[in-house]
Amino acid sequence: MSYQIAVLAGDGIGPEVMAEARKVLSAVEERFELAIEYSEYDIGGAAIDNHGCPLPDVTLKGCEAADAILFGSVGGPKWEHLPPNDQPERGALLPLRGHFELFCNMRPAKLHSGLEHMSPLRSDISSKGFDVLCVRELTGGIYFGKPKGRQGEGESEEAFDTMRYSRKEIRRIAKIAFEAAQGRRKKVTSVDKANVLACSVLWREVVEEVAKDFPDVELEHIYIDNATMQLLRRPNEFDVMLCSNLFGDIISDEIAMLTGSMGLLSSVSLNSKGFGLYEPAGGSAPDIAGQGIANPVAQILSAALLLRHSLKLEEAATAIEAAVGKALSDGYLTGELLPADERVNAKTTSQMGDYIAQVI
Amino acid sequence: MSYQIAVLAGDGIGPEVMAEARKVLSAVEERFELAIEYSEYDIGGAAIDNHGCPLPDVTLKGCEAADAILFGSVGGPKWEHLPPNDQPERGALLPLRGHFELFCNMRPAKLHSGLEHMSPLRSDISSKGFDVLCVRELTGGIYFGKPKGRQGEGESEEAFDTMRYSRKEIRRIAKIAFEAAQGRRKKVTSVDKANVLACSVLWREVVEEVAKDFPDVELEHIYIDNATMQLLRRPNEFDVMLCSNLFGDIISDEIAMLTGSMGLLSSVSLNSKGFGLYEPAGGSAPDIAGQGIANPVAQILSAALLLRHSLKLEEAATAIEAAVGKALSDGYLTGELLPADERVNAKTTSQMGDYIAQVI
Ligand SMILES: CC(C)[C@H](C(=O)O)[C@@H](O)C(=O)O
Ligand SMILES: CC(C)[C@H](C(=O)O)[C@@H](O)C(=O)O
Repeated sequence: MSYQIAVLAGDGIGPEVMAEARKVLSAVEERFELAIEYSEYDIGGAAIDNHGCPLPDVTLKGCEAADAILFGSVGGPKWEHLPPNDQPERGALLPLRGHFELFCNMRPAKLHSGLEHMSPLRSDISSKGFDVLCVRELTGGIYFGKPKGRQGEGESEEAFDTMRYSRKEIRRIAKIAFEAAQGRRKKVTSVDKANVLACSVLWREVVEEVAKDFPDVELEHIYIDNATMQLLRRPNEFDVMLCSNLFGDIISDEIAMLTGSMGLLSSVSLNSKGFGLYEPAGGSAPDIAGQGIANPVAQILSAALLLRHSLKLEEAATAIEAAVGKALSDGYLTGELLPADERVNAKTTSQMGDYIAQVI
Repeated sequence: MSYQIAVLAGDGIGPEVMAEARKVLSAVEERFELAIEYSEYDIGGAAIDNHGCPLPDVTLKGCEAADAILFGSVGGPKWEHLPPNDQPERGALLPLRGHFELFCNMRPAKLHSGLEHMSPLRSDISSKGFDVLCVRELTGGIYFGKPKGRQGEGESEEAFDTMRYSRKEIRRIAKIAFEAAQGRRKKVTSVDKANVLACSVLWREVVEEVAKDFPDVELEHIYIDNATMQLLRRPNEFDVMLCSNLFGDIISDEIAMLTGSMGLLSSVSLNSKGFGLYEPAGGSAPDIAGQGIANPVAQILSAALLLRHSLKLEEAATAIEAAVGKALSDGYLTGELLPADERVNAKTTSQMGDYIAQVI
């Protein structure tokens, strides 16, 4: 069987960390005798430079022809002067999510044992560890709701956005959250603002309905403002957090930062057919691009998730994750994960990739 | 000169901590020879029980006749089964904000020296301290934008909310943020989601315009997701955070929790005439209500803010703040601010009030 992956390395550290993911994928191909074809396309700032727009037609066509998208990261100061709609992040990611209806975004954030000191939390809180999965609705809500625009003139000119959710949209993402919880610690925390938003009131109703089909999973509701707070005090008490698009944007970033090691986190965006986009949680980090010091682990783990969710190659996915686990527990770490006085032992981007590939 | 304060103690710990604020206000009246008249009205759950609705007409009329509102807190498990619109928080606070056009909400969060251990942040981060003022727009955005509701049937039924901001609304709150920054560390961080929201694009434009009139104040823009993260790593680098209604709800709660001592924080909600509502940052805390252990400091400081902003009694306000400062530095603390092994020295709610009143 042969597979097609569209590779969208993007900007900043994207190409560097993608190279390591490719290295690791090669090792997996060899070990498991897989035939994976890769097609590389420009995306984001690189695509603006080469094609005049952040998501060129050829890239979109290439993705359509593939089984999955391995995404690097996009954006950087070079394109920040552009109007918001033309910027790399907004002009590449949002249309890809919309076009492929990638409604389901899963962002896990786990505090790895041995890396508790990386967390910005007080040691008595971080020492308890935490392992939270943010399940975020990705193609609805205020991101895509119509109407969106401006009207009026002078000081009365106003802008407007519409938050919009249907029962159908809420139900399909809620189901995924409950299913995920069944394979974890069996708790779903649904994040909303039902004391203010009509969308959240409907959200709560539908989530309650879905919960009835999962009697083994505990459900709790929490307001977004309170969620932001409770994650700081007792992150270990959360398992799956079910969020709308905007609230998931906020919560997933908060929990990522709570681990203190964004370079280890990746995320999955799926549609109902299992087609998906896989990307690291961190951004394009233009400040460290080109120095060979970026952590490629998140990109490598994105590849593992791709194998698992879109190609259904569970064994190969597990092999990558195990190899990453071994690298970390062997103390094979890039600089940002080491205390200042141990940075001399930091591994480079490509040393990390080599080591992980070789373990496989 | 005589003043009128509408006192809305509300639910949970509201009445207990309000009693201490009244004690302290009496001390101030005596020392500064002021004549303040207080009228008490039901609000929130108490008003639901006594009048059948969270904001009765008599309460609203009473507030209209007053110079300012001293608010306790509302809500509790007893009223959680009610439909969202009828619940104490939503049914009391939002209409009060709307009715009096209290568009400007200021929520300061300072990590008091000596209380760094209360912060959930890692000690090397909290030891640097922080002092952030969240300036939140309070009568616009997705809280009040029309249309808001539901339409359709079955699985296609959908809910919608409208986020809406005019140049005028953005300008008046932005001005306040810059003015506040001038009296502080001269930095405004404007929080938005300009890569997704039309409202945020306009927000950025207007904030940039306002910034031109404040050349001595530094302005930076940050996305809400990134703001949530950066506050965890480097809270000390923020001064004034300028936020729309929804983002301010989230950011103000996050910074409050970062201090770890919500019982010390209060907030101001003002309209363009200086009329205001003053309330503690924490909620009604029904779990500890009636035990005499709630921290009254936030309520007492709310009274100080009321004297300053609505009654223009700067000296009296400062006297209260100084007395609170003395209590805290004398180690006069309620239990939640003490390490477990020092809780035997905890002061009760009324001991705190007595001490502060007596210092005055
Ligand atoms: C770039 C931006 C549009 C995007 C979002 O808000 O979804 C990003 O923050 C993310 O979380 O993937
Ligand atoms: C009770 C609720 C409607 C309110 C809000 O969201 O504004 C509260 O969270 C606050 O921040 O004052």
